[in-house]
Amino acid sequence: MNYNIAVVRGDGIGPEVVAETIKVLEKVGQKFGHSFHFTDVPAGGAAIDAVGECLPAETVRIAKSSDAVLLGAVGGPKWDNVPGDQRPERALLGLRKELGLFANLRPAMVFDQLADASPLKPEIISGGLDIVVVRELTGGIYFGEKGHKDGGDMGPAAYDVEQYAKGEVRRIAKVAFDMAMKRSRKVTSVDKSNVLESSRLWRRVVAEVAEDYPGVELDNLYVDNAAMQLVRNPRQFDVIVTSNMFGDILSDEASQITGSIGMLPSASLADGNFGMYEPVHGSAPDIAGTGQANPIATILSGAMMLRYTFGLGEEAKSIEDAVNRFLSDGYRTADLCGGAPEAVTTTQCGDLIAANI
Amino acid sequence: MNYNIAVVRGDGIGPEVVAETIKVLEKVGQKFGHSFHFTDVPAGGAAIDAVGECLPAETVRIAKSSDAVLLGAVGGPKWDNVPGDQRPERALLGLRKELGLFANLRPAMVFDQLADASPLKPEIISGGLDIVVVRELTGGIYFGEKGHKDGGDMGPAAYDVEQYAKGEVRRIAKVAFDMAMKRSRKVTSVDKSNVLESSRLWRRVVAEVAEDYPGVELDNLYVDNAAMQLVRNPRQFDVIVTSNMFGDILSDEASQITGSIGMLPSASLADGNFGMYEPVHGSAPDIAGTGQANPIATILSGAMMLRYTFGLGEEAKSIEDAVNRFLSDGYRTADLCGGAPEAVTTTQCGDLIAANI
Ligand SMILES: CC(C)[C@H](C(=O)O)[C@@H](O)C(=O)O
Ligand SMILES: CC(C)[C@H](C(=O)O)[C@@H](O)C(=O)O
Repeated sequence: MNYNIAVVRGDGIGPEVVAETIKVLEKVGQKFGHSFHFTDVPAGGAAIDAVGECLPAETVRIAKSSDAVLLGAVGGPKWDNVPGDQRPERALLGLRKELGLFANLRPAMVFDQLADASPLKPEIISGGLDIVVVRELTGGIYFGEKGHKDGGDMGPAAYDVEQYAKGEVRRIAKVAFDMAMKRSRKVTSVDKSNVLESSRLWRRVVAEVAEDYPGVELDNLYVDNAAMQLVRNPRQFDVIVTSNMFGDILSDEASQITGSIGMLPSASLADGNFGMYEPVHGSAPDIAGTGQANPIATILSGAMMLRYTFGLGEEAKSIEDAVNRFLSDGYRTADLCGGAPEAVTTTQCGDLIAANI
Repeated sequence: MNYNIAVVRGDGIGPEVVAETIKVLEKVGQKFGHSFHFTDVPAGGAAIDAVGECLPAETVRIAKSSDAVLLGAVGGPKWDNVPGDQRPERALLGLRKELGLFANLRPAMVFDQLADASPLKPEIISGGLDIVVVRELTGGIYFGEKGHKDGGDMGPAAYDVEQYAKGEVRRIAKVAFDMAMKRSRKVTSVDKSNVLESSRLWRRVVAEVAEDYPGVELDNLYVDNAAMQLVRNPRQFDVIVTSNMFGDILSDEASQITGSIGMLPSASLADGNFGMYEPVHGSAPDIAGTGQANPIATILSGAMMLRYTFGLGEEAKSIEDAVNRFLSDGYRTADLCGGAPEAVTTTQCGDLIAANI
């Protein structure tokens, strides 16, 4: 089969981690007889530098006509003084909205070989940690009306509207329950329904969707409690489903408790099979070009692409197994060994994983 | 001096922890020659049961005419089916708004004697942990307009408006900077200014206020990053200042990393000296009446009351020292020793701390 992948190499370490991912995907293609076509499209800081805008229309057009998008990372201090609506991060928000990527899946798992890296005590994560945060990605306060108004006595004010419609909640809840069916059959929905009207609607709709999944256990947690429970006892979670804003916070907290943010992939899915795949980590401009970047998060994002967009479960697993083997063989990138001299470089890491396919 | 304190004993373990706090405050009064007058007022579940509403007007009136409010905890599953606008938690929101309690101070500190209780690895908190989260408490999405509207294709929608005016940000920022001046002179302001208009205003106003405090270092963090940093390296923080919603989440996360939520007090301050003082923990109805409740969070809230509302720094310190001595003497309430048989009861804890004054 032929698969068309639009590639945003992006900024900082983005191009380096994407290069290794393409290397691994090509190896998978050879082995399993698929051909992956990669088309580079600019977005983020690189696009600002090249064409003066963070998300050129042509990028959106090509992304839409592709089967999937692979993205490295965008942004960096270089573009700190660019006006707000053209900051590199706007490219991410623009891609999410234009491509209808309403479901963001962020697995937070601890690799056995890297369990020591967690900031949590060993007894808290012993037995393993494997959570998926399902974050709503095209609604809520990110995309609600925003602006300025008069704040009365208190002077000029600014506002942002958090808003959810039933249909938006229903479709993200379905993604979470479908995911839970393939995992440990537990969904935790996180909201702030003791304060927010939008959360009350969220909670009601999630409960309705739950009725179609009698085999899945549903828990509701307030967001403040969820932030505590992730630190206190993260092993209680299987799938967490939540709004765009709460998901931003909780998925980063969940990533951090694994201690290996350089390992964590993500998928942003639209209706149907289309998706955008990117590492959870950022563009880390401080280590760009030094060979210290860990490409594994992006390589594993490539595996998610094979599984979720192309339906190639076996091929995806071959990548995950290759990463596991890399770790079990004792190799470590700089971030995983405190920069010890025996660290393998970004390229070596990609080579070793590709060789394991 | 005479001090008038309105007391909301509240629900669950609330009355028990408040009783021990009053015991300790009376001992302080005797020793230092102050007289504290306590006036019980109903709020929360107890008020629903007694008079059919969670926050009777008389409670607000008496609270307003007092010098300070001491609150145990409100809420519990018993009132889960009460209509939304009369839920026990509404009493808290009502008190905050009616009393103008715009500044919520939540210290998250690790007691040397209890450092083991933290879920974080010892090397992460070694050297101690002492953060204050300054949370804006009467604005933002908690008190913005909320309601229902048509969500177009996606069906009926619900919304909540996050809103901040300059004056609101300015006064909470001042509280944070004043606090930092008495501590390690570092303020971290947390927002989501890469997405929210209200956060951009927040960040600008905080920067303006910072100009009046040249000796204080100001950092800005996005909320997702802050949630990560609290787990990765909490010792980087001194004072964190943030909005109502982000403060709800981050202060709970910060409390949890100490591992001793039964120890953590809070203060909610108005302009001037008026304040409401309450433990960070909830009403824990499951252990109400068993003698297992830890009254220390409330006792330490009493100490904050002496310091912030009454300006009695030495007296406040006498309580904090008495708590420290209790811990150093090896006493533990049930929550601090996994319910071991040698645990002291709520009353014994209050007696021992009062005796240390
Ligand atoms: C860069 C920023 C706009 C973005 C977000 O808040 O969604 C990022 O934090 C993320 O989580 O992908
Ligand atoms: C009970 C609830 C409304 C309240 C809040 O969200 O402020 C609580 O979580 C708190 O932090 O005091």
